[in-house]
Amino acid sequence: MITIIARFKMQAGKEEEALQSTRKMAEAVQANEPGALAYFAHRSQEDPLEIMFFEVYAGDDAFQAHAQTPHMAEMRSAFPQLFDVSQVKVERWERVGGFARPEAG
Amino acid sequence: MITIIARFKMQAGKEEEALQSTRKMAEAVQANEPGALAYFAHRSQEDPLEIMFFEVYAGDDAFQAHAQTPHMAEMRSAFPQLFDVSQVKVERWERVGGFARPEAG
Repeated sequence: MITIIARFKMQAGKEEEALQSTRKMAEAVQANEPGALAYFAHRSQEDPLEIMFFEVYAGDDAFQAHAQTPHMAEMRSAFPQLFDVSQVKVERWERVGGFARPEAG
Repeated sequence: MITIIARFKMQAGKEEEALQSTRKMAEAVQANEPGALAYFAHRSQEDPLEIMFFEVYAGDDAFQAHAQTPHMAEMRSAFPQLFDVSQVKVERWERVGGFARPEAG
């Protein structure tokens, strides 16, 4: 299992369109990637332009497959119009404990 | 619903004890805080000293209650021996989309 935190900023003035693209992305991941176990998009409460994805994959294969999907290609192509490409940060994490209740999903 | 990302560093040489304390904390949250919907502890794959909690609360009340629990008081008291207190960062996020499958928990 791999956990990814990806964060980046929306272009000012493009917030609604950018948020819509993150929701569409999450729907495509849910429909097409059984190895994506969780995929949540968030907006910062401190910086209204900042977006953070919390992603859990069954393993490295599932994470590599995610990068190769048509919906990821579509997101990449729309990315520079909606987001600040200079500020993308991706981190990999190993889960060491914890839980989720059904209401979390 | 509120999502929290809390990150901080373990003291070098105290990693095993520090990881054990994060697992114990997660168990106490699961057993005692029904308003904590998800609570995952992680270790960075890039920086072996870095810890990140991903926490989801039903609302602000549940998050405030979390800070007042006996297990949080215990963690606070042990914190300086196991973690670098100068490097704690806590961020609040609003979920804007996404999903979790049962296997994620």
